[in-house]
Amino acid sequence: MTPKKILLVVCDGLSDRPVKQFDMKTPLQVARKPALDAIARHGINGTMDVIGPGVIPGSDTAHLALFGYDPHKVYTGRGPIEAAGVGIEMAKGDVAFRCNFATVDKSMNVTDRRAGRIKHGTSELAQAVTGMKIEGVTAIFKEGSEHRGVLVLRGEGLDHRVSDVDPHRDGKVLAAEPIVPAAEKTASVLNEFVKRANKILESHPVNKKRATEGLPPANIILPRGAGSIGELETMPQRFGMKCAAVAGVTLIKGICRLVGMDVPEVPGATGGLDTDFRAKADMALRLLNSHDFVFLNVKAADVAGHDGDFRIKVSVAESIDVMMGTILKEIHEDVVVALTCDHSTPVAVKEHSADPVPLSVSGGGGRVDGVKEFDEISCASGALGRIRGVDLMPILMGMADRAHKFGA
Amino acid sequence: MTPKKILLVVCDGLSDRPVKQFDMKTPLQVARKPALDAIARHGINGTMDVIGPGVIPGSDTAHLALFGYDPHKVYTGRGPIEAAGVGIEMAKGDVAFRCNFATVDKSMNVTDRRAGRIKHGTSELAQAVTGMKIEGVTAIFKEGSEHRGVLVLRGEGLDHRVSDVDPHRDGKVLAAEPIVPAAEKTASVLNEFVKRANKILESHPVNKKRATEGLPPANIILPRGAGSIGELETMPQRFGMKCAAVAGVTLIKGICRLVGMDVPEVPGATGGLDTDFRAKADMALRLLNSHDFVFLNVKAADVAGHDGDFRIKVSVAESIDVMMGTILKEIHEDVVVALTCDHSTPVAVKEHSADPVPLSVSGGGGRVDGVKEFDEISCASGALGRIRGVDLMPILMGMADRAHKFGA
Repeated sequence: MTPKKILLVVCDGLSDRPVKQFDMKTPLQVARKPALDAIARHGINGTMDVIGPGVIPGSDTAHLALFGYDPHKVYTGRGPIEAAGVGIEMAKGDVAFRCNFATVDKSMNVTDRRAGRIKHGTSELAQAVTGMKIEGVTAIFKEGSEHRGVLVLRGEGLDHRVSDVDPHRDGKVLAAEPIVPAAEKTASVLNEFVKRANKILESHPVNKKRATEGLPPANIILPRGAGSIGELETMPQRFGMKCAAVAGVTLIKGICRLVGMDVPEVPGATGGLDTDFRAKADMALRLLNSHDFVFLNVKAADVAGHDGDFRIKVSVAESIDVMMGTILKEIHEDVVVALTCDHSTPVAVKEHSADPVPLSVSGGGGRVDGVKEFDEISCASGALGRIRGVDLMPILMGMADRAHKFGA
Repeated sequence: MTPKKILLVVCDGLSDRPVKQFDMKTPLQVARKPALDAIARHGINGTMDVIGPGVIPGSDTAHLALFGYDPHKVYTGRGPIEAAGVGIEMAKGDVAFRCNFATVDKSMNVTDRRAGRIKHGTSELAQAVTGMKIEGVTAIFKEGSEHRGVLVLRGEGLDHRVSDVDPHRDGKVLAAEPIVPAAEKTASVLNEFVKRANKILESHPVNKKRATEGLPPANIILPRGAGSIGELETMPQRFGMKCAAVAGVTLIKGICRLVGMDVPEVPGATGGLDTDFRAKADMALRLLNSHDFVFLNVKAADVAGHDGDFRIKVSVAESIDVMMGTILKEIHEDVVVALTCDHSTPVAVKEHSADPVPLSVSGGGGRVDGVKEFDEISCASGALGRIRGVDLMPILMGMADRAHKFGA
């Protein structure tokens, strides 16, 4: 049997709960979505606990699970994913932190956790602090979008089990504490980095200029979310497929890079409500020619969910439908197309929830179960049953005739 | 509550995918099968990942799982199962190999991996090589059907982690290599066995006679699939039931013996398309009088699947239906009857696939879920949901009022 290609489409946070004011329907049940429904109608359907029953997935842990990794085993903190997102290649033993550029007063009280959402100059600030050597450890720092950045500590004897420097609200900058004795050196190096960086940033021309403009200085770096990552077997290694991703958000791109996908830039893919759906469709189609596995993430529905906006969520679902219509028109029926979400973000909750997500898989000559619509309830009666996120990739591999036999 | 008897019927490879030329139906959806549908209609239904989601089951690993054993724990290779199949009782520390009688030329090149599919004389050839002592290890050899045989090495310091001697195609006979240092002795004993057996077989009267008839000599034994088996808790020990099996294929019989079932010979049960379904039904009925648990395997559908023959698969399903009709007419409604497959062998794939299999369980006063037909899609909407193979026996034990309480 010829192995088939796989397209995995994840509608970030699109899954929801029924809303009273909308006739007890979910946004997916209200949206006009012929293309999404066609995937359900021509395939098998189910629901999925992306991490496990009753666990609220983060977008990071959810995507690791969807790519076949047990997040309980490979996820230690968001640092390494952010590092991959900004393009720092992590090595074994490295410890990575998400960071904010922030503003502190003379007595090290945080007065603005985002340094006035600084937009320009962070690249120069990062240049000024990166490369520092402390106790034989190298501190690699790179700016992210706006006030964000990533710190990677590289050297002997590091351990990610340290507490955050970031107080997570206005107030005194915290000293990192080792959570286990093995992390004492890491905490000490981290605290020294924060101190030295503060000195350097205070007198940096970028901040001098901000002062003249009446803007809060980005005079401190606040690390949090320490994590390290072992030697991760990449998706190409595990599954023997050439893999690529279409995504707009740094976090998602970071995860995709971490697991060995090619992540081309898609102009116009913002990860926001204004994302260019057509550009994403075109890129996915192009990648399906050159790769075996293509992952496509659309973030916009999650944004609408966090905003608690039912109508915008419906309209995002309809935009995704148009995007999928474009794709389905062009691809061969042999491509296994999986459509799902990384988690629910119900408009009533305005946050991620533990509700399972709908899943539809069509194409590749697989089974067809009679489900007619892609939504939280219709899919639940399908032949896929209720699966776990970590089982999705093996199931897709099986449907694409790429699985391995165990036994004779 | 009186414990009930259990009948487990496994239709080897009957599960399939929809086929375009047959109106997008599977063979099970096309077949006329009132008896199989009656089991679905009077019971509860579901689908089953026999090993796990996205894993293609071998027939051997699948049956271990169906009997309640985690194949990842107990399965090391096919050797021990074949050994049980030919009636060699394995002891702890033994290493077993599947073997072929084959033909080699003077420079040890395999010219026929099956020695012209030798039919007669292998018993005499086996007698000539069995019992050899090498480095304190005893080599036990027994012929199987046609060109097949089994080698069991028995002695101190053996380890199954050695590579195959069989080149798996025409070409140079391979020297077994230890995969781990602990297997060095095993590899050395194995290579010596192959060498000595070659000398003995070359000059054996059976081969002299074959030469005069222009047939290729069975002048070498090619071991492969090394495996050992720990002390397996048998099904009677684990489940407290007297267990028996009706099966035609050596491999399946071997597994059944390995797990402690009685495996009477059934004249006419061939494991092929020509198997005597009526004889199997009669034997199953007889065993249900004397045993608590009866397992019935029908291999024929798998053969049709490997041949890619939709119509023959439909006809096998209908023969199985007649067989089950005979059985259902005779048994008490208190017998818990489970009907399922060990794996899918879709006619479109001509090989095992990872698609889950349908499962119907009726009788014993259990629940009834409204599913009307035994097929891949109908069963998926049943009350059993999607289960794993290793959970089947505990579920059947529960339905037969034979399960144990945990707690008070």
